[in-house]
Amino acid sequence: MSRDLLDPPPRVISLGLDLFALALEALDVPVVHVAWSPTAGGDVRLAGQLARLEARAATIERANAEALARLTGGEPFVVDCRPAWEALELPERTVLHAGPPIAWDRMCEPMQAAVLCAIRYEEWAANDDAARRLVESDRVKLEPCHHWRAVGPMAGVITRSMPVFVVENRAFGNRAHVTINEGLGKVLRYGANDDSVVARLRWLATEAGPLLGAALRAGRGLDLRALMAQALRMGDEMHQRNVAASALLVRALLPHVARAGGRHHAVARLGEFLSDHDQFFLNLAMAAGKAMADPAAGVADATLVTTLSRNGTDFGIRVAALGDRWFTAPVAMPVGLYFPGFGPADANPDMGDSAIVETIGLGGIAMAASPAVARFLGAGGVAEAMAVTAEMREICAGEHPIFRIPALDERGVPVGIDVRRVVETGVTPLINTGIAGRRAGVGQVGAGVVRAPLGCFTAALDALVEAAS
Amino acid sequence: MSRDLLDPPPRVISLGLDLFALALEALDVPVVHVAWSPTAGGDVRLAGQLARLEARAATIERANAEALARLTGGEPFVVDCRPAWEALELPERTVLHAGPPIAWDRMCEPMQAAVLCAIRYEEWAANDDAARRLVESDRVKLEPCHHWRAVGPMAGVITRSMPVFVVENRAFGNRAHVTINEGLGKVLRYGANDDSVVARLRWLATEAGPLLGAALRAGRGLDLRALMAQALRMGDEMHQRNVAASALLVRALLPHVARAGGRHHAVARLGEFLSDHDQFFLNLAMAAGKAMADPAAGVADATLVTTLSRNGTDFGIRVAALGDRWFTAPVAMPVGLYFPGFGPADANPDMGDSAIVETIGLGGIAMAASPAVARFLGAGGVAEAMAVTAEMREICAGEHPIFRIPALDERGVPVGIDVRRVVETGVTPLINTGIAGRRAGVGQVGAGVVRAPLGCFTAALDALVEAAS
Repeated sequence: MSRDLLDPPPRVISLGLDLFALALEALDVPVVHVAWSPTAGGDVRLAGQLARLEARAATIERANAEALARLTGGEPFVVDCRPAWEALELPERTVLHAGPPIAWDRMCEPMQAAVLCAIRYEEWAANDDAARRLVESDRVKLEPCHHWRAVGPMAGVITRSMPVFVVENRAFGNRAHVTINEGLGKVLRYGANDDSVVARLRWLATEAGPLLGAALRAGRGLDLRALMAQALRMGDEMHQRNVAASALLVRALLPHVARAGGRHHAVARLGEFLSDHDQFFLNLAMAAGKAMADPAAGVADATLVTTLSRNGTDFGIRVAALGDRWFTAPVAMPVGLYFPGFGPADANPDMGDSAIVETIGLGGIAMAASPAVARFLGAGGVAEAMAVTAEMREICAGEHPIFRIPALDERGVPVGIDVRRVVETGVTPLINTGIAGRRAGVGQVGAGVVRAPLGCFTAALDALVEAAS
Repeated sequence: MSRDLLDPPPRVISLGLDLFALALEALDVPVVHVAWSPTAGGDVRLAGQLARLEARAATIERANAEALARLTGGEPFVVDCRPAWEALELPERTVLHAGPPIAWDRMCEPMQAAVLCAIRYEEWAANDDAARRLVESDRVKLEPCHHWRAVGPMAGVITRSMPVFVVENRAFGNRAHVTINEGLGKVLRYGANDDSVVARLRWLATEAGPLLGAALRAGRGLDLRALMAQALRMGDEMHQRNVAASALLVRALLPHVARAGGRHHAVARLGEFLSDHDQFFLNLAMAAGKAMADPAAGVADATLVTTLSRNGTDFGIRVAALGDRWFTAPVAMPVGLYFPGFGPADANPDMGDSAIVETIGLGGIAMAASPAVARFLGAGGVAEAMAVTAEMREICAGEHPIFRIPALDERGVPVGIDVRRVVETGVTPLINTGIAGRRAGVGQVGAGVVRAPLGCFTAALDALVEAAS
């Protein structure tokens, strides 16, 4: 029964860096390569922190199961659209903005431009100079939308007379709010600030908002989770692409809008606005996301992310076990495609509360549902889209029971980003995003993808270890 | 250099029937199976006919290229909705029906029921018995929709006071027409015939149709090809599934409907009708299909199919080189899923002009775009959907330049069914379809898939050979 040690010949399994495998392949030696990398990229301190949490793994897994159930069990209905002063009790001289808290002098230029424009729109100041003096002298307060049960795309500016959609999570009783998406072109959220921007805001506040509000109240709530599940089946990932969701929403609202709209010219103007507004639904997806994510905040020991958000300077995350604490790191620059005449030199770093969509498993996480969106990644197409979603599964705690992808034979999207897995693998969430011009008044210059910075997750990991010890 | 004949051991390639391959596999003998079958299933006469056409292959290929260019080059715009007496100059006492021509006594029961109900609706007779006497005494004429620049789903009944959409092919100047889809439940097209059916027809004629017509005229034409290309990217194959196209259409029409609708209750009623009507667009896809297919009729020597249609008794096809001639064979029974309380015993054989959608490369041909629809096939899912579209490529002359499928990395749908390839392979077009109850008054009982019968194609092949000799 003796057998030559090298018969059959040795076979090679290569782990980690692919250099060794590539060298063998060049020599025609059969090799199986396993993409393995050391925990936390070989960072001994972080590996130690992960090991400390590992000692409490059973407790954490139970907590994460609870957090995941909350994150995926929400039932968001849009029930109203009304002014922020009424829905949020937002006071005078307060401007909400996207992302984690940030002081005026650290704000990027498009966000500053949006803040000043909103102050003019509210008529707290007659021009940008006067508006700037109000902010610099603390007579206008700046606060994150997220601290006010609200979210805002890009600059995310909300002031009291702006109408906001009211989204109610009927499973948990909480509410979330968001402004009406202004459309493309020169819009406040991208830091545009001319008269056309203010005029559109006035129309939204005086005609479109009240009409949408009346229609929504008459409709007694529209089930956003069902609509989003349907739109996901139609190629929307609901961050970069919202055409299906927007069209489904308009169709669902049409009878109520018609019934509410006594003056049919108002209905026609709203219809005109909606008729080719492919991103209209984005804001509702965001409010639905916040309504679904908020109940997961405060679950003790849970290491799942409840907020991903950016203010154009910092990227901030919040984690279930750690409630309202923000963990921030410098925000990255999106990579993507630019409108004619613009390029990376014109781009502002990543901005907006819209990554709440990724927080609930959509957007970049659900790229497999939207091969068309994958073109922002490079070659694009089906394989690249599938690869993104597959990679996101590595850092997520579960699969969504409602948000499913037909191209994956109805498999649910990955959901529940686990801080531990992010640090362990070094894989951070991929976010689909618009790109703002870095100068005031320019507006959108492109669209692309961006990674959440690892620093937010390592900071959160340290805090989780500290909280557990 | 001598070498043992059986070292390496023999390897097996199996052609044709898979029995041999399966037997070897059971014995663990490695085998490569190639699904090959003899031309025309081994039918010597048909193989001879194909060989006769093969002698003229270069002429036929040139003709087919022209026919394909017409079939895929159409630019269908929906421009109006107005009564059939006006749009089609349809006279009194004429009832149009789906499919190839058929005498009253050979019509299936749901089609007869729809014809009689339409006669009551037009008030040419007070009840079904009186209506039947009019038909049997030739005082009401029965003609195919296809002979009147029109198409109709299922029974496909059109009479003069029914409003029809007007679709203009702006590349070729021809027009096609179709009724407004009535929705689900008890509807004329499925052979339902009670008072609710007539009441809905009256509302369509007196309120919905005029309002849609005014909106379309104000909109100066809506590009259906662009809308259909978009909807195909959103999971619609536009026969069984039209949810994206319907929602996009409603969104596009909204401002014009609002502006046209002086009485806002009419707009609200129309909105209510449209708000969850996922198949509303089907009829427009059909009219677009006919508008795109008609210019390919009459291209000498071309062997591509220009019409697929069924009247519930016969399946009929028409072929480019042979103009208006029909080639018929007994229609098959769809296979699919039934509504609760119904089964195959309740089903009428395949019916309707809706297979014009497959004629232009959508519906069953484009199954890969709609994995959700593939569940009517059996196990369903992505693999089965992909397999159907791959099989359809075998019988199609080309790929559509505009109708593309993201899940196939933007590859065009197969289009241009070639009679020669169908006979050669024995593969006939797969059609997605609704299933009507076989008794009058029942309505829809299910939905599924059906194959066009081979007999239509062999008859057309014979006529092609005869025309060429």
